[in-house]
Amino acid sequence: MPTLNHKFELAARPSGLPKRTDWNFREAPVRDPSDGETVVRVIYISLDPAMRGWMNDSRSYIAPVKIGEVMRALALGRVVASKNPQFSEGDYVYGPLGVQEYAITDGRGVSRVDPNAAPLPAYLSVLGMPGLTAYFGLLDIGRPQPEETVVVSAAAGAVGAVVGQIAKIKGCRVVGIAGGPDKCAYIRELGFDAAIDYKSENVLAGIAQHCPEGVDIYFDNVGGEILEAALARLARFGRVIICGAISQYNNAAISQNSSAGMKGPSNYLSLLVNHGAMTGFVVMDYVGRYAEALRELSGWVAAGKLKSREHIVEGLENFPDALLMLFSGANHGKLILKIAEP
Amino acid sequence: MPTLNHKFELAARPSGLPKRTDWNFREAPVRDPSDGETVVRVIYISLDPAMRGWMNDSRSYIAPVKIGEVMRALALGRVVASKNPQFSEGDYVYGPLGVQEYAITDGRGVSRVDPNAAPLPAYLSVLGMPGLTAYFGLLDIGRPQPEETVVVSAAAGAVGAVVGQIAKIKGCRVVGIAGGPDKCAYIRELGFDAAIDYKSENVLAGIAQHCPEGVDIYFDNVGGEILEAALARLARFGRVIICGAISQYNNAAISQNSSAGMKGPSNYLSLLVNHGAMTGFVVMDYVGRYAEALRELSGWVAAGKLKSREHIVEGLENFPDALLMLFSGANHGKLILKIAEP
Repeated sequence: MPTLNHKFELAARPSGLPKRTDWNFREAPVRDPSDGETVVRVIYISLDPAMRGWMNDSRSYIAPVKIGEVMRALALGRVVASKNPQFSEGDYVYGPLGVQEYAITDGRGVSRVDPNAAPLPAYLSVLGMPGLTAYFGLLDIGRPQPEETVVVSAAAGAVGAVVGQIAKIKGCRVVGIAGGPDKCAYIRELGFDAAIDYKSENVLAGIAQHCPEGVDIYFDNVGGEILEAALARLARFGRVIICGAISQYNNAAISQNSSAGMKGPSNYLSLLVNHGAMTGFVVMDYVGRYAEALRELSGWVAAGKLKSREHIVEGLENFPDALLMLFSGANHGKLILKIAEP
Repeated sequence: MPTLNHKFELAARPSGLPKRTDWNFREAPVRDPSDGETVVRVIYISLDPAMRGWMNDSRSYIAPVKIGEVMRALALGRVVASKNPQFSEGDYVYGPLGVQEYAITDGRGVSRVDPNAAPLPAYLSVLGMPGLTAYFGLLDIGRPQPEETVVVSAAAGAVGAVVGQIAKIKGCRVVGIAGGPDKCAYIRELGFDAAIDYKSENVLAGIAQHCPEGVDIYFDNVGGEILEAALARLARFGRVIICGAISQYNNAAISQNSSAGMKGPSNYLSLLVNHGAMTGFVVMDYVGRYAEALRELSGWVAAGKLKSREHIVEGLENFPDALLMLFSGANHGKLILKIAEP
């Protein structure tokens, strides 16, 4: 049994981008597990845009992280001790283990993963929440039909890259919006039909050029002006899937438990004109269908039709800076913090 | 045959509320109908919020009215001469006859109505576009289930009052938002469970009070802050039906072919949190199902389950001022301009 844990606790609710002072880095002894508990050494921590929302004190789909609590994070680790018959020493497990070296869990939301079926980081990426998010959002809400045009923002990101590849599998034309030439080249390699670099191109003009028949499905990870550009070119009976709004998450007013400073899509009446639908979701809405989705995703990965890329930053102490990479777009692929050897 | 027509033509594209100088009132001879044409004496002209949109030079679901063209309007009239075998002298007809005393039509979009089956104004109201709009928006997009909570804005208006009554027929709890005590009393008389007076009450607090389980369906005719209040209290899997946005139509920036000055719902991420859907439509999307809907609407009217109220202003010359009543909320019930005796 290990003796010491290191962890990041939420010290203050951030206004805008999280600052170093919004975190406390703490050392504490690792206690023995009680009956039903399991001790997990955390290896890979998933860094996700949704974490920013969990830091706000506002009503949402999940309770906020409390001040003084270990920061919530999905992570993958290995069981070092267990008084829960579901888990044995040496098992690899995935779940909400938090930003810390050792997690003690009652097993809720934790599942075993097979280290031989896929590389471990894939369980945080294409075979984890981002893959499931892409799968259900695109297929269940978007219902893509062959020949339709699908546009996805943050297209080189953990969710967007999977959305585009599944849309190609379903026979759609796929246009990705990403920041910078490297990310645009990457999504073209993945098979996207076109890439729009929002850092150097006019997105509205790019969508008009690459979607001459309009946008049948827009998968939105970013909100703001890019959402408006997609709405402006929505096709008849177009579907907008609201998965996230990373351009808006660090808006100071939102952090203060209000949407007063948030930008809503000013041209939402495009929905009226085009009989369009804008539908939101969180992946947990589909928890009963994860197994089905993972079977299909695994099959596509095995067949070489679905690729993933992880951006791995090492060292627990780098958590505060690594998290910020999501908001500057500095990460290339699914952002993962590695804090131990597998 | 009459000899002289009087009509309102669009003189200029308004910025904000239409001014008197945006119209030309003209006199012109009535020509004889050519083969296939019918001359109709217009009796009742429907005044609708959508007319404001038709005056803008912007891409929409229907072409803008051209400068110098007779203002588009749905209307009911009586055939005075016909070289179209579908229509005979004396027939009552309904269609896009325009803001004028005599319309010459090739019959496209024009249908006969039975003056004995319902009072003539009802064909512009509960048995016309407003009734059909309420019917398809609520039933096809909203899909109300018994016991669900339905909120409708502009609830005393031509569409809103029908939405609320159909929702009651379907076994829902119905909360209406309307302006002033008279309109609120009226919708309570129609059977609404609660009324919120947006002119004297805080709408967000009113929705919270009257919808303790959240809003399952919000039928939006107004946009702006009331849309945001409904989104703020959206229930899980809530449906927002975007039918109109009368609070925004006279925004100067929108009139100038842009949505730059338009207010989008800043809290649209409520859709994400609640797996909500916001879907728009125009009634013409359902043209193939009008007959089916009118049969059902007529049945409810005959059974006394569906009531309508018309606000009739007399005199063609009053058209410019009467239209403005829609935007100040001065009308009580479906606004109709009567320009001749039936």
